[in-house]
Amino acid sequence: MKYILILLFTGIIANAQIKKEQLDLMPWPQSINLTQGTFVLNKNFKVNITGNPNSRILVGATNFLRRLDGRTGLFLQQGFVTKINEVPTAELQINCVKNGKIGLYEDESYQLEIQSNKIIINATTDLGALHALETLLQMLQNNSTSYYFPTAMITDFPRFTWRGIMIDVARHFQPIDVIKRNLDAMAAVKMNVFHWHLVDDQGWRIELKKHPKLTEMASDGNYYTQEEIKNIVKYADERGILVVPEIDVPGHGTAILMAYPEIGSKVVNLNSDSIESKTQVSGITSYSLERNAGIFSPTLDPSNPKTYQLLSEIFDEVCPLFSGSYFHIGGDENEGKDWDSNPKIQEFMKRKKLANNHELQTYFTMQLIPMLKKHHKELMGWEEIMTKNMSKDAIIHSWKGVNEGVPAGKSLVDAVKGGYKTVLSNGYYVDLVYGVEDHYTVDPMPKDVVLTEQEKARILGGEATMWSELATSTTLDSRIWPRTAAIAERLWSDEKVTDINSLRKRLKTVSFRLEDLGLTHIKNKDVLLRNISNNQKYQALEDFSNVCEPLKKYSRNKGGTEYQMYSPFTLFADACTPDASDALAFDAAVNSYLKNKSLENQVLVTDFLKKWVDMNAKLIDLSANAPLIQPLLPLSKSLSAISQQLLVGIVKKQSLNSSVMSDLLEQCNSKAHADVELAVYTSLKKLIK
Amino acid sequence: MKYILILLFTGIIANAQIKKEQLDLMPWPQSINLTQGTFVLNKNFKVNITGNPNSRILVGATNFLRRLDGRTGLFLQQGFVTKINEVPTAELQINCVKNGKIGLYEDESYQLEIQSNKIIINATTDLGALHALETLLQMLQNNSTSYYFPTAMITDFPRFTWRGIMIDVARHFQPIDVIKRNLDAMAAVKMNVFHWHLVDDQGWRIELKKHPKLTEMASDGNYYTQEEIKNIVKYADERGILVVPEIDVPGHGTAILMAYPEIGSKVVNLNSDSIESKTQVSGITSYSLERNAGIFSPTLDPSNPKTYQLLSEIFDEVCPLFSGSYFHIGGDENEGKDWDSNPKIQEFMKRKKLANNHELQTYFTMQLIPMLKKHHKELMGWEEIMTKNMSKDAIIHSWKGVNEGVPAGKSLVDAVKGGYKTVLSNGYYVDLVYGVEDHYTVDPMPKDVVLTEQEKARILGGEATMWSELATSTTLDSRIWPRTAAIAERLWSDEKVTDINSLRKRLKTVSFRLEDLGLTHIKNKDVLLRNISNNQKYQALEDFSNVCEPLKKYSRNKGGTEYQMYSPFTLFADACTPDASDALAFDAAVNSYLKNKSLENQVLVTDFLKKWVDMNAKLIDLSANAPLIQPLLPLSKSLSAISQQLLVGIVKKQSLNSSVMSDLLEQCNSKAHADVELAVYTSLKKLIK
Repeated sequence: MKYILILLFTGIIANAQIKKEQLDLMPWPQSINLTQGTFVLNKNFKVNITGNPNSRILVGATNFLRRLDGRTGLFLQQGFVTKINEVPTAELQINCVKNGKIGLYEDESYQLEIQSNKIIINATTDLGALHALETLLQMLQNNSTSYYFPTAMITDFPRFTWRGIMIDVARHFQPIDVIKRNLDAMAAVKMNVFHWHLVDDQGWRIELKKHPKLTEMASDGNYYTQEEIKNIVKYADERGILVVPEIDVPGHGTAILMAYPEIGSKVVNLNSDSIESKTQVSGITSYSLERNAGIFSPTLDPSNPKTYQLLSEIFDEVCPLFSGSYFHIGGDENEGKDWDSNPKIQEFMKRKKLANNHELQTYFTMQLIPMLKKHHKELMGWEEIMTKNMSKDAIIHSWKGVNEGVPAGKSLVDAVKGGYKTVLSNGYYVDLVYGVEDHYTVDPMPKDVVLTEQEKARILGGEATMWSELATSTTLDSRIWPRTAAIAERLWSDEKVTDINSLRKRLKTVSFRLEDLGLTHIKNKDVLLRNISNNQKYQALEDFSNVCEPLKKYSRNKGGTEYQMYSPFTLFADACTPDASDALAFDAAVNSYLKNKSLENQVLVTDFLKKWVDMNAKLIDLSANAPLIQPLLPLSKSLSAISQQLLVGIVKKQSLNSSVMSDLLEQCNSKAHADVELAVYTSLKKLIK
Repeated sequence: MKYILILLFTGIIANAQIKKEQLDLMPWPQSINLTQGTFVLNKNFKVNITGNPNSRILVGATNFLRRLDGRTGLFLQQGFVTKINEVPTAELQINCVKNGKIGLYEDESYQLEIQSNKIIINATTDLGALHALETLLQMLQNNSTSYYFPTAMITDFPRFTWRGIMIDVARHFQPIDVIKRNLDAMAAVKMNVFHWHLVDDQGWRIELKKHPKLTEMASDGNYYTQEEIKNIVKYADERGILVVPEIDVPGHGTAILMAYPEIGSKVVNLNSDSIESKTQVSGITSYSLERNAGIFSPTLDPSNPKTYQLLSEIFDEVCPLFSGSYFHIGGDENEGKDWDSNPKIQEFMKRKKLANNHELQTYFTMQLIPMLKKHHKELMGWEEIMTKNMSKDAIIHSWKGVNEGVPAGKSLVDAVKGGYKTVLSNGYYVDLVYGVEDHYTVDPMPKDVVLTEQEKARILGGEATMWSELATSTTLDSRIWPRTAAIAERLWSDEKVTDINSLRKRLKTVSFRLEDLGLTHIKNKDVLLRNISNNQKYQALEDFSNVCEPLKKYSRNKGGTEYQMYSPFTLFADACTPDASDALAFDAAVNSYLKNKSLENQVLVTDFLKKWVDMNAKLIDLSANAPLIQPLLPLSKSLSAISQQLLVGIVKKQSLNSSVMSDLLEQCNSKAHADVELAVYTSLKKLIK
């Protein structure tokens, strides 16, 4: 009784002492020491800033207050933080030595000390202080009546200087608000580079005053004005994020060539109508905006001075919109077909002594370097730009791997050994909808290669890439988040932070907090499922979505022509996400059961099986008024069929016909239905073996 | 057996014949005749346009295709509609005689004929054709495997020419994407005026190149650039919507006066420090941005020529951003306190022979008319501008009613009798969170007053007003929608369309379709409840939200000082909405039970009562880890207590102590908890009587 009283007492006065494992921090800090105490929040809580920080910390501190208030409902008195040293007596003191420069190698470290009556953030720059504020928000705890921070000392800094996300806005245009909420999310997990893929075969997305034809002809009206771009750059800056624009050349050139076909490489042979006169006249091809996905041949003509004239004028307009020091010029997937068949280009190569298309592309890329230098930008490109004679100033973006027939991250090692700085994206292609573990286990620092310290230093970090062939504004967030938070941790935290169970546990909270911040990865699923079910009660459909995952890799939209960019992305596969929640839970249940066939463990498994039998019946009911559910029924039926058999086997202890079971199992392995796969296949297999 | 076969057969070939009552059209069309047939959709479905429409119909038709595709998942082949008569053989033919002019009195009528193999839209203008496309989308039906339109002939036109929504972006700024999604929703229910309340005591939201101080000092960085405003006007135009900007003067002037205090009316008496020297010097007051809600005194000085100079310059910059012919100058709630106490203004009134503040305000308003005329804009203002000598060209916006101590819509009748055109907003204040029935039963055409045809013609229509003291971007949609769709119907459909049960039934579908279109009124509730519950399973909290409604009228945030504009609007009251769904269902159950105490009807009632007892227990559990649930417990406990008693009374047929019951009932009538009220109070009362 005494013990209970004491517990109650400390519960009221302070709080049950929290353990490190209970914290849902992500990325996990470099060092954290919890002490025995709490800082209890109340509405008088205020923030004060000292030192010489950039004014972005004022925006950051104000946003921090609003988010804290939104979570706690405390009606914090302080509305806006508007200047340095405004409230010297404030409970939260942020001390910054100097103005943080947005870019690589800046000091982003911070120290966060939570005492029971005071919180102190010490950081060299405001960028570190912003990170500290995110950590502090993640530290927030509560008991039944109040919110508090556990007392602690945290020392933290990033492992890599480049922690990026690329968003492709060419395939599916993404409005300003979508970009902004993703920048918010990036800042929340301490990412600092937004790589903006602005141009591709499917669209040109930048307003150009001097070349309005580009958006007029190649954007369907979907582009960013220069003012909007500047607005995004400012918004990113306020969150400590560098924006790296990309204009992809010389391949992926359809959009540019729609407006300027005269700088294209393709030769058209205009045969005269009569068979007699075999005269050939070469002319200019016309290009039309690509609606499919894939690799296409439209390529800029590197032998044409007009190409460089145009690009130079484009850079002159685009570069000043971005305050950062890097410009990505793409350079990927140029197959050079149109170069091979163009006699003028062949002649040019001979004249310039360029032995092959690689050398020709290097020639091309080298022309861009001074155009960018003029605006104080360094050139960055996908790994294909790394050929003999490429300037060592260029940053190599390593993206190829097993899918492309080369060892994962091969170009990364080649780059650093060749003297280039490099950023890793292979392994971080979040658009391919792999599970989070696949990304979390990829480290930019190769383990099986001996590198010198200098070479290691050239590995700047990594970047999650979100290509948007299959993602609209409605689904984009669910393709990036929450998985990218795990990539953020990989790039920030110590390399030894690798516990996948800890990650999954923390990711649940992070995911929910991200949606709190404005993302839509959870809530838009409901919108899609409601439409698919025709506004019927869709619990069964939701249950099914929790065991299904969209087809991975490039196996959805095979060949790139099944879907066009304007196709409906409102299907079941679009509502489903990687890491299907019930599939993960079922796997855990199966593992427990196989380890120990207690009744309790058995029930964990059979509850799922019963649920799926029931679900299938309900889906059939729903489908009577929902054509979009029809394509799901074969897979649901397969799951129901095997579940029924397994129930017989497990509950009634009857032995099952192994050939029947293996047939049923393989039906659950089908990828032929509705662009999804059953994520429970592997777990079912364990039960059958 | 024969009968069943025939049913199956028609089910496959055609579809069960649908009845008018099954259609979820809103606003209900003027005339609709269903015939015996169906137009079955397939992926070859195409659209063609003929005649001389405005090019906005190309955007409209393309959007129509994408929305149809999103709902059906058919992968419609036609991507973009880019010119007139592009696909002469298309199944959907849209014929427009002429270019629609955005503004009042334009022909918005259409005829929509759905045949079994062809759909024909005939409209005088593209504006009518856009409405027809919305109706066609609402006509979409399905069986188990396909989507179809029932064959029909619809003839339709609006009853009123002004069908508007006002959104206040001064109290809480609303980003561009929030405005756009609300414009989409307006178009979906055939509304055609967006009244943009851009300026108030809490903020100035328009970029001015000549007067940058306004946004620098009075916007907290939250304002629209001129480019963004033009972008919104274009977006609205493409949806057939007129944009009417409002700059509220001479009252509600804090934001303007922050930047230009010299044109304020307040006199400051600068007493010298020493008591001896009683000299008074008058000086300029400084103003600070208002963070509370209410009516404040800062008012422009109508005696100061600089006031008119500034306003003229502001109109010169702002007017050209808007293509429409109307400009709203506010004019409301000027209490004239600062005028009374300003000797200079009193002297001015004497000189100009202005007998009182009303005449002074008329003098002020009349100066604005030529400033607007210069830009071909007519002046509109809230009803306070209607005083003796006000120009008959001005449009009077009728807003006062019982809350303001006058009969509902009094000024509307005064206006039309006085020769003014008028728009009704009294009864359409959606921000006051009344139930939908309260708005649906308000008709702009007064029933108890005899008006001439000319007078009736001056009633232009009505406008839902969404003041934003208590609404952020997260909650705004749920305060406007779906209820405003009922107002849209009132303003479009025949006056005899008044069946509230039909409305409620159709509104369910409309609500869901609006969210499909991008609104957030359903899904953001989950985001808020998840935060309140601390990411625990929150079914009980959701159940509770379905019987609670936010405090109505002006009873939340009493006095305007409990909440500031930066307060957290993430509370339970923000998640709740009017027309709480379980409250409506419970009321229906109670009515059935009281009519016929069958066991079946009894169960309908007792299921709810049991649910609430259970819910209370679960809420208590949840609250152990969720401080934000604590304030809800007293109300949940009251509901549980009375439910327990009623169960005893109903199920066990025990008689209940009437004084105990009436005490318990009154506890359910409390408005003292968490800014919400129990929406089941009236129904419970019926059970106890």
